[in-house]
Amino acid sequence: MAGMTGIESERDYIQSIERGFAVLLAFDAERPNPSLAELATATGLSRPAVRRILLTLQKLGYVQGEGPRWRLTPRVLSIGQHYSGSNAMIELAQPHLLTLAEQTQESASLAALDGAEVVYVARVPVRRIMSINVSIGTRVPAHATSMGRVLLAWAPPEVVEQVVAESGLRAFTPRTITDPERFRAALRGVREQGWSIVAEELEEGLLSAAAPVRDSTGAVVAALASSTSSGRSDPERLAREVVPLLLRTADRISADLGHRASTPPRSVVLEGRDGFF
Amino acid sequence: MAGMTGIESERDYIQSIERGFAVLLAFDAERPNPSLAELATATGLSRPAVRRILLTLQKLGYVQGEGPRWRLTPRVLSIGQHYSGSNAMIELAQPHLLTLAEQTQESASLAALDGAEVVYVARVPVRRIMSINVSIGTRVPAHATSMGRVLLAWAPPEVVEQVVAESGLRAFTPRTITDPERFRAALRGVREQGWSIVAEELEEGLLSAAAPVRDSTGAVVAALASSTSSGRSDPERLAREVVPLLLRTADRISADLGHRASTPPRSVVLEGRDGFF
Repeated sequence: MAGMTGIESERDYIQSIERGFAVLLAFDAERPNPSLAELATATGLSRPAVRRILLTLQKLGYVQGEGPRWRLTPRVLSIGQHYSGSNAMIELAQPHLLTLAEQTQESASLAALDGAEVVYVARVPVRRIMSINVSIGTRVPAHATSMGRVLLAWAPPEVVEQVVAESGLRAFTPRTITDPERFRAALRGVREQGWSIVAEELEEGLLSAAAPVRDSTGAVVAALASSTSSGRSDPERLAREVVPLLLRTADRISADLGHRASTPPRSVVLEGRDGFF
Repeated sequence: MAGMTGIESERDYIQSIERGFAVLLAFDAERPNPSLAELATATGLSRPAVRRILLTLQKLGYVQGEGPRWRLTPRVLSIGQHYSGSNAMIELAQPHLLTLAEQTQESASLAALDGAEVVYVARVPVRRIMSINVSIGTRVPAHATSMGRVLLAWAPPEVVEQVVAESGLRAFTPRTITDPERFRAALRGVREQGWSIVAEELEEGLLSAAAPVRDSTGAVVAALASSTSSGRSDPERLAREVVPLLLRTADRISADLGHRASTPPRSVVLEGRDGFF
């Protein structure tokens, strides 16, 4: 890993920065208002070290002490805002996500790969699937989701193998594909058909379909997804009714990113099916 | 300021952490793919210092080098996710925001105060005001928005004075209240009536209404807002049609946070007006 990061010597690595993030990320749903002692336990750092980090983060405006307890401030959200602001795709995609959510009456999401996980980078929620409570920045395992399958289908083999190794293709339901050979075959299938549907491999009752978004170089940079529940749809219906909308929307986002469709142009194939809807 | 932060000595402040965030936040819409030299200029740090920070942030997975250019990775979004995850209000508020957006057919937002600015902490976008492109983490000046007025109306006087001083009550349009005495009077008006409407003080054509969200201690912890444009509504119509929905929704979020309405219970007053909608 050291070779991949470009770190050439210990001198190039600033441990305080790592520790600063470790303390910041130790605040979560299980530990929303930790004490200094709880943060020391959670991070494995000494109390004096955690204290100095908290005082620094407080001066920077990211945490606030309230008596013996600490909490994150909304300034923490600004950090993610810099990602969204520096990523033209997210702004470009927003109106397309709204259109897709309106057409399908299901939540529409855009996600990117980060290690063995997929991160939601944009999302338009639709009321009726509020049970699936995901917001921007939420991470889900790549191997068990349609978004992850799409992102991995066009990824270099070494990235796929790293995800297989890191995730161990862990089973979340009896349907999760856990065999590496079957998993690689599933990715080949996604690449051939140009989209992915994954049904109940992450959670019982959860279905989703995803399609690739490409940038001007043709690289798959994100997955566009629509998710629903087994009570409202099934894989066949998703493929018939949602996938064409998904592909068309993904092509439009790709076009906005400067991608020119290669032959055979998928959008033209879809144009012919338009009357279907 | 040093007294407020709890920093007792230089020893307690870890400069590398400040510098790590400075480099991370130097990536933005104007500088999405900076070079090392551009980051050095933007942060005022030396190139060797920026290089070490970038290599550290890369090892932590927050930035990635691509040739001579650098970019943020979606992992940056996880940091904000920890704020949302550690803040029960945001999850609780989500279904209420969706209901409000459906009822009003306008975007619904929840915002918190951070210094002289207001930060969007949750938001349900509605197609037709996509022109106002704000996402979670977006910051707007508190003094010129209905959300800021609500958050300041119930804030301690010293917080109000700090916002007045920091913002200089800068004018964004000819309508912005820039006189401190008029501004304080406007806040008193908001406290008396229980909600705020601000029309075209931040941007021509932009109107919004906001109401306070309270926690179990009765403290105002967020502002719930609905925004529209002067082409679709006006302050009188907002007050008549949107404010009652806004107050009812804010009361419901407050109730979910454990707040018990004091006398006179605003929700009862509203119940009587229900037939209006």
